[in-house]
Amino acid sequence: MVSLPLDPNLWLIDGSDTYLLGIRHHGQVLFDEQSPYQRVRIYDTIDHGKMLTVDSLVMCTEKDESAYHEMIIQVPMVAHGAVKDVLIIGGGDGGSVREVVRHPGVDRVTMVEIDEVVVRASQQFLPSLACAFDHPKLTLMIDDGIAFMDQAADASFDLIVVDSSDPVGPAEGLFTSAFYQQVYRCLKPGGVMTVQSESPSFNQSAFRALHHCLRGVFGADQTHCYLTVLPTYPTGIWSFNYCTKGGAHPFHSLDRSLAATVAQTHNLRYYNADIHTAAFQLPTFIQQLLTDGAD
Amino acid sequence: MVSLPLDPNLWLIDGSDTYLLGIRHHGQVLFDEQSPYQRVRIYDTIDHGKMLTVDSLVMCTEKDESAYHEMIIQVPMVAHGAVKDVLIIGGGDGGSVREVVRHPGVDRVTMVEIDEVVVRASQQFLPSLACAFDHPKLTLMIDDGIAFMDQAADASFDLIVVDSSDPVGPAEGLFTSAFYQQVYRCLKPGGVMTVQSESPSFNQSAFRALHHCLRGVFGADQTHCYLTVLPTYPTGIWSFNYCTKGGAHPFHSLDRSLAATVAQTHNLRYYNADIHTAAFQLPTFIQQLLTDGAD
Repeated sequence: MVSLPLDPNLWLIDGSDTYLLGIRHHGQVLFDEQSPYQRVRIYDTIDHGKMLTVDSLVMCTEKDESAYHEMIIQVPMVAHGAVKDVLIIGGGDGGSVREVVRHPGVDRVTMVEIDEVVVRASQQFLPSLACAFDHPKLTLMIDDGIAFMDQAADASFDLIVVDSSDPVGPAEGLFTSAFYQQVYRCLKPGGVMTVQSESPSFNQSAFRALHHCLRGVFGADQTHCYLTVLPTYPTGIWSFNYCTKGGAHPFHSLDRSLAATVAQTHNLRYYNADIHTAAFQLPTFIQQLLTDGAD
Repeated sequence: MVSLPLDPNLWLIDGSDTYLLGIRHHGQVLFDEQSPYQRVRIYDTIDHGKMLTVDSLVMCTEKDESAYHEMIIQVPMVAHGAVKDVLIIGGGDGGSVREVVRHPGVDRVTMVEIDEVVVRASQQFLPSLACAFDHPKLTLMIDDGIAFMDQAADASFDLIVVDSSDPVGPAEGLFTSAFYQQVYRCLKPGGVMTVQSESPSFNQSAFRALHHCLRGVFGADQTHCYLTVLPTYPTGIWSFNYCTKGGAHPFHSLDRSLAATVAQTHNLRYYNADIHTAAFQLPTFIQQLLTDGAD
């Protein structure tokens, strides 16, 4: 049990003015730097391991980041089945690159992160996430993902992952139609994009708006919402969208053997062949959020 | 965004001394009574509707109670397919009875709630939950569920639902082998029991202990964990167990048409035929929690 008041030196509070979560830490901030874009901090929590925040919003904790990174990466990797060229926009903590390079069939990974401070903080304090920055297949660019997309060549990537923070600050432009039109253009035929798309309970309007935006760009039958659960994001429930350029349905022809092999070989903590499909089954209120007023 | 300090007159804080959630309300407590068992309160929250707490733990909110009540009831009702006699232990807010009486094939519902104050508070302030207490098929008894089970006749029920609060205070005895042996005895052959079994992230030891206890009583192949998501319980992820006395597998022979009919006829907000099966697909870390050290 816990009661108010909370010691502001021991609790990180995330949320809104009507709903919040609090994660207790040891008091000492391990990393604290104001970048040109945002305030980047690392805390040592009591029971969630190290925690990265930007502008006091939880980005990840060592305890439950697998529910995010495995799901944003392994779902499209396994559904596509033959990914060779990957682009990650954002993903500065390194968790998404780590998941991509588990696949020996990948030839090249390009990661475009706007804020080198996030990368540096993660390299220093989140080694279990930032473990693939030296991988020979990786090209890491500290650059604006929107500008990068505008200049990238047509049909360059099998998989594009938009692993961004929330649609405020530097990530705001990653929630627009103009950006996803560039993403679409840069996907190879049959290519796949996944993007984190906020909480259907906590950021309902951003969740709906992004899904509708994606339907507009990729087509309704090529746009599929899926879910994960991680206690250190407000409400615990979080969403992704899986979109293709004429590519594989996310689970109708799932190669369960590939899914199981990936999960077992790498001792994944969240992803498995059953969860792959189950994640696309939405509670009715979420289905309704996405279809009400659909174009 | 929210920052400390939090006004203790405006925030209900639930959780532990390392992880908490806060739900903001309008300040006025609508109902506040110390029963012989617990402190029962109703708050008017800013964006989760009315909220019932016992001993400052969130029991339900109008906004997301469907994720709990539809899942603890419709999953066993649909999986069994021909439930006639139902027993509910606990469930004082009325949400579980409401879900049971949606099924015209049910003949009798017995509900045994230890605390009449919870029923009264819910009747007064949670009419969307406490809407079936006058139903002609219902017998409501204010009594100790453990004593009731000890005296109930063998093979009396098709479905027994243990809709309890957490394993502290009056509900503690609902988390023991002795109790579930009585439950087993009182189920008809082919009967089903469901029970709320805490958060696999927040109450890990209670979650594991109850599952192992149930495996011991019902058998491992008759005990199946499933999940729901509701933001007003700590961590957002919550579990149930589905156990049978030689009855139906929870989803292998699912009557999808029945599931869809129930969901559509009653405009259910969470449950649907796809979620029924998806809820039993567990992230790997939860599978491991349940199997590590299994007997």
